[in-house]
Amino acid sequence: MTYDKNNIFNKIIHKEIPAHIIYEDEHSLAFMDIMPQVPGHVLVICKECATNLEDVSTHALSHLIHTVKMLAPIVAKSMGKAGFQIRQYNGKQAGQTVFHLHFHIIPLNDQETLKGHAAVIEDDIILKQQATHIKAALQ
Amino acid sequence: MTYDKNNIFNKIIHKEIPAHIIYEDEHSLAFMDIMPQVPGHVLVICKECATNLEDVSTHALSHLIHTVKMLAPIVAKSMGKAGFQIRQYNGKQAGQTVFHLHFHIIPLNDQETLKGHAAVIEDDIILKQQATHIKAALQ
Repeated sequence: MTYDKNNIFNKIIHKEIPAHIIYEDEHSLAFMDIMPQVPGHVLVICKECATNLEDVSTHALSHLIHTVKMLAPIVAKSMGKAGFQIRQYNGKQAGQTVFHLHFHIIPLNDQETLKGHAAVIEDDIILKQQATHIKAALQ
Repeated sequence: MTYDKNNIFNKIIHKEIPAHIIYEDEHSLAFMDIMPQVPGHVLVICKECATNLEDVSTHALSHLIHTVKMLAPIVAKSMGKAGFQIRQYNGKQAGQTVFHLHFHIIPLNDQETLKGHAAVIEDDIILKQQATHIKAALQ
């Protein structure tokens, strides 16, 4: 499918809409998922205009996965979680809801139950507190 | 945690135990998950001895994610699926059951239900047929 620039993640990249950003560099950006499946659910996106894994460039994908690798253990530890899952959806039939490539960091403890994907909006104050906490751990 | 070479994926790499391999190169290997969550569930592993995302090298991870990117759309299309999810688990508390880094390719159609992770062993003949089918699509 053709990339549509009118998506919320592209607007977050261009600071046209707010997000609780925890990390940013030249090629990638990470922020709190506003509909977290668990506390500390973070999204990591590339700044390149890519719909999903199918159309992303080699360079942008390499950078993105290394941002995920760098962030995920710190996100998990700072949220008091023992492990983490990485998830990434391609195509609406596979659950993709925003058509800009993104990786989910889902920090987890044993037996922790995940809420549905893109299901319930979290309180903005809680997301802000979590972002502040994670950013401090990233220092 | 320390990498333990006595795991089934390392044995598959060294051809000490069989697997329905669909792809292999110098740095990565892909084969059918014997406990698929959906038909066509494929695992992609690095040949480097890495437990998960935390201890894999930059080079091995870059190669691995590009193998996933190359394979996943072909696996999905050849299995008649409209999309696919990528999943990757770190730590037993997050559901990791084999402690050698692996990415799950989970091809999906709309409303398709996933079986539990590492839950039910599939018939070997069915896995062989699917691997043959996917390998033909990769030619």
